[in-house]
Amino acid sequence: MNSESLKKLLQSVAAGDTPVDNAVDEISKLPFEDIDFAHIDHHRSLRKGFPEVIFGEGKSSEQICGIMAHMTPRENIILVTRVDTEKAAQVLNRFPQAEYHTDARMVVLKKKEPPVRGKGTILVVSAGTSDIPVAREAYLTAQAMGNCVESIFDVGVAGIHRLFAHKDLIDQAAVLVVAAGMEGALPSVVAGMVSRPVIAVPTSIGYGSSFNGLTALFAMLNSCSSNVAVVNIDNGFGAGYMAAMINRE
Amino acid sequence: MNSESLKKLLQSVAAGDTPVDNAVDEISKLPFEDIDFAHIDHHRSLRKGFPEVIFGEGKSSEQICGIMAHMTPRENIILVTRVDTEKAAQVLNRFPQAEYHTDARMVVLKKKEPPVRGKGTILVVSAGTSDIPVAREAYLTAQAMGNCVESIFDVGVAGIHRLFAHKDLIDQAAVLVVAAGMEGALPSVVAGMVSRPVIAVPTSIGYGSSFNGLTALFAMLNSCSSNVAVVNIDNGFGAGYMAAMINRE
Amino acid sequence: MNSESLKKLLQSVAAGDTPVDNAVDEISKLPFEDIDFAHIDHHRSLRKGFPEVIFGEGKSSEQICGIMAHMTPRENIILVTRVDTEKAAQVLNRFPQAEYHTDARMVVLKKKEPPVRGKGTILVVSAGTSDIPVAREAYLTAQAMGNCVESIFDVGVAGIHRLFAHKDLIDQAAVLVVAAGMEGALPSVVAGMVSRPVIAVPTSIGYGSSFNGLTALFAMLNSCSSNVAVVNIDNGFGAGYMAAMINRE
Amino acid sequence: MNSESLKKLLQSVAAGDTPVDNAVDEISKLPFEDIDFAHIDHHRSLRKGFPEVIFGEGKSSEQICGIMAHMTPRENIILVTRVDTEKAAQVLNRFPQAEYHTDARMVVLKKKEPPVRGKGTILVVSAGTSDIPVAREAYLTAQAMGNCVESIFDVGVAGIHRLFAHKDLIDQAAVLVVAAGMEGALPSVVAGMVSRPVIAVPTSIGYGSSFNGLTALFAMLNSCSSNVAVVNIDNGFGAGYMAAMINRE
Amino acid sequence: MNSESLKKLLQSVAAGDTPVDNAVDEISKLPFEDIDFAHIDHHRSLRKGFPEVIFGEGKSSEQICGIMAHMTPRENIILVTRVDTEKAAQVLNRFPQAEYHTDARMVVLKKKEPPVRGKGTILVVSAGTSDIPVAREAYLTAQAMGNCVESIFDVGVAGIHRLFAHKDLIDQAAVLVVAAGMEGALPSVVAGMVSRPVIAVPTSIGYGSSFNGLTALFAMLNSCSSNVAVVNIDNGFGAGYMAAMINRE
Amino acid sequence: MNSESLKKLLQSVAAGDTPVDNAVDEISKLPFEDIDFAHIDHHRSLRKGFPEVIFGEGKSSEQICGIMAHMTPRENIILVTRVDTEKAAQVLNRFPQAEYHTDARMVVLKKKEPPVRGKGTILVVSAGTSDIPVAREAYLTAQAMGNCVESIFDVGVAGIHRLFAHKDLIDQAAVLVVAAGMEGALPSVVAGMVSRPVIAVPTSIGYGSSFNGLTALFAMLNSCSSNVAVVNIDNGFGAGYMAAMINRE
Amino acid sequence: MNSESLKKLLQSVAAGDTPVDNAVDEISKLPFEDIDFAHIDHHRSLRKGFPEVIFGEGKSSEQICGIMAHMTPRENIILVTRVDTEKAAQVLNRFPQAEYHTDARMVVLKKKEPPVRGKGTILVVSAGTSDIPVAREAYLTAQAMGNCVESIFDVGVAGIHRLFAHKDLIDQAAVLVVAAGMEGALPSVVAGMVSRPVIAVPTSIGYGSSFNGLTALFAMLNSCSSNVAVVNIDNGFGAGYMAAMINRE
Amino acid sequence: MNSESLKKLLQSVAAGDTPVDNAVDEISKLPFEDIDFAHIDHHRSLRKGFPEVIFGEGKSSEQICGIMAHMTPRENIILVTRVDTEKAAQVLNRFPQAEYHTDARMVVLKKKEPPVRGKGTILVVSAGTSDIPVAREAYLTAQAMGNCVESIFDVGVAGIHRLFAHKDLIDQAAVLVVAAGMEGALPSVVAGMVSRPVIAVPTSIGYGSSFNGLTALFAMLNSCSSNVAVVNIDNGFGAGYMAAMINRE
Repeated sequence: MNSESLKKLLQSVAAGDTPVDNAVDEISKLPFEDIDFAHIDHHRSLRKGFPEVIFGEGKSSEQICGIMAHMTPRENIILVTRVDTEKAAQVLNRFPQAEYHTDARMVVLKKKEPPVRGKGTILVVSAGTSDIPVAREAYLTAQAMGNCVESIFDVGVAGIHRLFAHKDLIDQAAVLVVAAGMEGALPSVVAGMVSRPVIAVPTSIGYGSSFNGLTALFAMLNSCSSNVAVVNIDNGFGAGYMAAMINRE
Repeated sequence: MNSESLKKLLQSVAAGDTPVDNAVDEISKLPFEDIDFAHIDHHRSLRKGFPEVIFGEGKSSEQICGIMAHMTPRENIILVTRVDTEKAAQVLNRFPQAEYHTDARMVVLKKKEPPVRGKGTILVVSAGTSDIPVAREAYLTAQAMGNCVESIFDVGVAGIHRLFAHKDLIDQAAVLVVAAGMEGALPSVVAGMVSRPVIAVPTSIGYGSSFNGLTALFAMLNSCSSNVAVVNIDNGFGAGYMAAMINRE
Repeated sequence: MNSESLKKLLQSVAAGDTPVDNAVDEISKLPFEDIDFAHIDHHRSLRKGFPEVIFGEGKSSEQICGIMAHMTPRENIILVTRVDTEKAAQVLNRFPQAEYHTDARMVVLKKKEPPVRGKGTILVVSAGTSDIPVAREAYLTAQAMGNCVESIFDVGVAGIHRLFAHKDLIDQAAVLVVAAGMEGALPSVVAGMVSRPVIAVPTSIGYGSSFNGLTALFAMLNSCSSNVAVVNIDNGFGAGYMAAMINRE
Repeated sequence: MNSESLKKLLQSVAAGDTPVDNAVDEISKLPFEDIDFAHIDHHRSLRKGFPEVIFGEGKSSEQICGIMAHMTPRENIILVTRVDTEKAAQVLNRFPQAEYHTDARMVVLKKKEPPVRGKGTILVVSAGTSDIPVAREAYLTAQAMGNCVESIFDVGVAGIHRLFAHKDLIDQAAVLVVAAGMEGALPSVVAGMVSRPVIAVPTSIGYGSSFNGLTALFAMLNSCSSNVAVVNIDNGFGAGYMAAMINRE
Repeated sequence: MNSESLKKLLQSVAAGDTPVDNAVDEISKLPFEDIDFAHIDHHRSLRKGFPEVIFGEGKSSEQICGIMAHMTPRENIILVTRVDTEKAAQVLNRFPQAEYHTDARMVVLKKKEPPVRGKGTILVVSAGTSDIPVAREAYLTAQAMGNCVESIFDVGVAGIHRLFAHKDLIDQAAVLVVAAGMEGALPSVVAGMVSRPVIAVPTSIGYGSSFNGLTALFAMLNSCSSNVAVVNIDNGFGAGYMAAMINRE
Repeated sequence: MNSESLKKLLQSVAAGDTPVDNAVDEISKLPFEDIDFAHIDHHRSLRKGFPEVIFGEGKSSEQICGIMAHMTPRENIILVTRVDTEKAAQVLNRFPQAEYHTDARMVVLKKKEPPVRGKGTILVVSAGTSDIPVAREAYLTAQAMGNCVESIFDVGVAGIHRLFAHKDLIDQAAVLVVAAGMEGALPSVVAGMVSRPVIAVPTSIGYGSSFNGLTALFAMLNSCSSNVAVVNIDNGFGAGYMAAMINRE
Repeated sequence: MNSESLKKLLQSVAAGDTPVDNAVDEISKLPFEDIDFAHIDHHRSLRKGFPEVIFGEGKSSEQICGIMAHMTPRENIILVTRVDTEKAAQVLNRFPQAEYHTDARMVVLKKKEPPVRGKGTILVVSAGTSDIPVAREAYLTAQAMGNCVESIFDVGVAGIHRLFAHKDLIDQAAVLVVAAGMEGALPSVVAGMVSRPVIAVPTSIGYGSSFNGLTALFAMLNSCSSNVAVVNIDNGFGAGYMAAMINRE
Repeated sequence: MNSESLKKLLQSVAAGDTPVDNAVDEISKLPFEDIDFAHIDHHRSLRKGFPEVIFGEGKSSEQICGIMAHMTPRENIILVTRVDTEKAAQVLNRFPQAEYHTDARMVVLKKKEPPVRGKGTILVVSAGTSDIPVAREAYLTAQAMGNCVESIFDVGVAGIHRLFAHKDLIDQAAVLVVAAGMEGALPSVVAGMVSRPVIAVPTSIGYGSSFNGLTALFAMLNSCSSNVAVVNIDNGFGAGYMAAMINRE
């Protein structure tokens, strides 16, 4: 039930067509029972400004295609994350207009290019080549949400001069996403160089006491730079989404 | 050494007053050895837009006063976090113009009110009364950095209707800080209601398997809402700082 | 006491030598010494009111069939949990009257419908679609134990209005089972809405710092609602069993 | 706003005294903004059937007394948990009709005895003498919520015969609360003896690899008895509360 | 170098054939360089009373056969633990006189039956059917080391009467090995019944918060019975070995 | 069976009406049902061969004295562990015949020397001087239980020659207790030198990643020597008790 | 930009050919933009004295070959770690002059033998046969970096005499690398014998509470010998690299 | 027994004064029973090149003074670590020639300046002012062991330019010790700048998910720079000791 149908009900009360007790009953269930709220994706697109994103891991290509078929009529852009090559082939077979980004393991279906809504540039930085899939997931997510996105890859702290070579790009970014595994030191260093919000995303890259990204996660939460907030391990999508939220007009 | 002094040196070279070799020598040490850079706070204030904040825990009131005395001539606002009542009394004795906020355990010294620089309102929400110190630390930090800040306290998920009672405030916020201990569920619920960035700050409130805030931290990192990023346990200051960064024009 | 001595006692009762009350008293102590009680399933069915449930994981289809063959003559209902599709096919080949529930990965063999013994309705709620297998395991277990069971799936806290749309069902439940992975916040929210016992069951859904359900488990143990108790990760069977215990007349 | 005030508003609409648009506006904010909902304790008492319980740890005796003074006019019974001897003395000085239970570290203020509402007996069992404070907290909570409560203390599994000596009490209980520290084995053994729900509460008793109750907690979650659900470490209050919920007519 | 060769050296000194300085030098390196110590297995059999046991996991059947071929001439009994069915077939092909125990995943090669050296009976108890492989590994190890061994399987604490049915066997044991997974409660209960040493061996049976045996391990270390000591998770071999050590004349 | 029925049975024996063998049989079943067995200490002394030991930590000197007063008439020896100097003074004031061992933080009250019941010598070895309290607790416990006990302190693996200097003592021991903190390596080295059972007891000595003894505990559980079993961190009492169990005739 | 190009710029300023403002601009970006720094491998070889090592895990043979092809013209030696047999075959097919070391799972391509640069001998010691792959990785790395390397394998602390048999080799080493899994005790014992730096490398060998090497790691960090520093679990490469750094003239 | 006394014994054999059998007997106990080896510190000073260092934590000032009195006659330098101000005053009262370094909480007693034995300069770097105590402990230890030591404090990665300002000092160091708490990123950055061994020492500085230094420890073990090895949390002494070992001629 939306404002208009509520108005109609009240007009009916005012007109004496609906008894007061019936109206009391109907209104008291609101806004919980309205069938409109059951169109989940539809509602989210209105409420949050972006449709639900399909988490591909653990879903069959049939399930992914089913959800996509359900969303296609209503949404201009559909993202599917964590899709392996094999599933992607099956999805693209069904939706030929979709693109598969191997590096990010992501399927993107755009009915039209999203209009640029972000106020500045989002910069995605990653520490090592192994962190690129996570970084690219952030990149494509932010881009799909209507942002100018730039990226710098493979600038780990063991060769810190590589980072400084990109100082201009870093200085001009409105929001930064920094992905790193192993010791997770890069977000601290980058955040120390700028006065802009940095979203740190730990990756599961490493072995032994990297604990599948936990060490990087904790390091980032303990950053000595204050302009850092953190998302879950390997959550490139979440980092890109959060950056897009921050970058909105 | 700043741009102006560099310019003077080069003018001196151009004028033939400084031999090329001397200038090579001087410049090659820049920007690393210039004594001005040793005035750490000064530099940070320029680079990051806000002076260094004093972490009061583990420092004596003498040490705190010493640092404040050093900063006072240069800075318009000084924050000291995690100051207990006793130390605060000694600090205020020395700096009578400072204020002590008992609930946030914070000393704030303002030479003048900070001009409002934030583009929207920052809303600080906390789950329980015990989370208020952390929430207030975020509140005062964001305020000191030139933002309009509002707050809603004691709206835990066990009585979710209390949260909905404040839907207007929530909808109007540009950035939200949500503090919660125990199961740390509040940021997910709040973030599900808005399309704005939410900074989640876990608190160490709880006992047993709350693990001094670790459970809340992990819950927040696993939020099923994507517009959430997280800071360290009890890091109200960091949450307020990050929110201020996001809220900048 | 073994069969022979039990026989003697009963003959003595039959002969009028032992009063019935005395025999009742003596026999009630019996479980500990009688060798016959090595027939485990038989005894449990008497003692606990429900036959032993077969944990299918790590058992071959041959082993499962062997145990079922042993139980069939004595029990009216047999549950096998954690059975994959392949094993299930082999089991159903041998026991064609059994049903396989793909979503719950459970085999149910009923010789006749269990009589409804529960005093009210048990409601099973799950946060996400991925939590459904665990929720369905709880559902089918509670149903097999003679309860009216209802379910609401996919009502995570990121869109809390979806939950409120089912307020009637929630209010009418006598006992609730709430399954959730990731941040595990749903049981707290649901429990805050009712004055009925809630059994929370964490699922291993999530990645990174969800730690295969540990974060959800700890969040549930720290629920700010007091009418919550928790079972092991992914233990849908245990949650359904506990709910059935609570719902007994 | 309750049903009556809603009815009045609609009557006013029906009577033409309130324009439809004003009513739309007013109703759309409901039930979120109504001031009545701010009387938190009052509402909970209606919704959950028992007033909010005061968690005494970390609160001063002044704060505890303040909350009690606020609750006394409205509630028939007030519980304060985790109160040390010193604070308790100050509380009892202010509220002479309250009782302090040293063993449970709990203050109970009853304006009148709670009517017995539970359908059966709740039995509280504890493994060692050191677990008694937690067990007693469960005992007093369940009792205050209108239940017949019995208890058996000091029946750890190292001398299992002590437990069997109380088989009658155990068999007659409708709900059981079992508290244990160290290896946390008691709930499994007790639950294996009955076909009733058992609420297991781990205590922080132990040293070394007991990890302040974590080992007991995990042991209980892994109980090989299925009629067990678990609450947080040392959460005697929660266990008693949950048992009372289960025991309701 | 043994006593005799030392004597020879000193005789040579006494005879003036070896200069004092050379002897000083040679003796100072003793007993580290004597080549006899390099016959590792040989030495252990003398020093420890039992030959080295081959840990089969991670070794190819070729490697296992190679080591066995090396040991066969010298040892009367050879144990290989953690051997899967496939490898076992290849080993038995090469050593037809060896036996493979499927339940314990163990290969045993006896040139002759080991003489009984243990002073009493070792009793191996296991909680569930899934713990049997570990229990059988302990059983066969203790037996191979020359002990009378008895076993009781599937007597978990959820049906404690099953345990008491075997009280005689339990009372007569000189040493007990108790294997359990999940909550690991059985060793405490068994140890409470006897005044004999109990070796507790946690198994990795369980799921969720059983943490692959860690919960059982910690529970056992926190046993409220004092006559319990613990070995590593799934270390049936070590438990049997330790029991045999204790049971020696 | 209660005291009265026991009395009747014994009178019947005295009168020659019940043969001794029958009475023996009947009474041997007694521990489980008789209410008199609530006198815990009495029963344990019979069943386990040693009276209950008082864990002094967390008990007041009044409580300790109360329990001791209760035990003194029945027991020849009483041990109280983890008693600080202040409490010990109060205990000795009340029980002047007791001794306080400062190094072990233990009170020992012997009415007469315990007869030597152990078949060999128990050797207690400790790695560092800081481990001595735990080692001494083991020493005094084993001694009080009627064993010849020897000790070697301060022979850590960083100077392994110190250990070899005591090879004779080590070789002659029937059972060994080895206490170590930090990396916990000593039990492996000692166990590699003997063919006797070694009880390893980790101590909480260390800092940082010693995790209060957890690292030592895990190291000991992973000993590459098979004749090692482990007790809880700092559990010197348990190690001595277990050694005494093993050393019994 | 190096000193010479800076000199040229300043000379151009002195000559009036470059305006002061342009020079300010150019210098302020230095040393971040110089394109020479982008030749990553090249630079590392100069800066660190050894080319980047290829971490083979998770890379396809194509990727490995691609990187090798890029490095071959510039470097005299190329190391690829963690290469399985199958990938190695493909790599050697492309680079026939490379060698594959099965035991260390390492590919080494040498255009010429590295000149010996180390000042002494590096000794690699490993506890068990299963630790050899890690030990060999250290061995080959140190050797490839121009060091004399010796090794002693299979000298675990359970048979400590095996270690002493090699005292001469141990005494003569300039730097030692000690690899051990399980309880990780060997580095402490070895370090106690020498006054040289010991690099300890924990391996993931073990099961149960070895936690994939974490127990060994923590044991090594808690070594009671002070001449020990530790690298990550299974990081044989890092241990060999660090030893080579220490052993440089 | 040292070389000289051994020589005397053999001369006595050569002279016929000591029978061969007696000499065999005496020598066979060596080097284990010789009383000289019981002078632990003395021996270590010879074997390791530096006397044992006194760990002051948990020792009374009396105990510290006792050990110092024992060592003074034999050693030229004595170090006592982790001494608080109060204990230090008492120690200096007894040993007026000793110095107390408040910042490092260390007592140093030098009979004469240690001769410089290190081949290069050791540089100690620390991230924050709170890390200085640990850094200073490393500094003073390395200095006491005869090294030239330099230090740079407060150069955390959040303001990386502060580090580069000291590039000359960093480049000239032969060995580096880098101390950092919180995210522990500094060692990676420093190690990336040099081709020298870096000893990383995590400090317990931080809160929340810094876990008392564990996060820094793990970050350092996962350093993407290979010339890093790590010591225990807060182990400044160990870092300085290891650096001195590496820096030896």
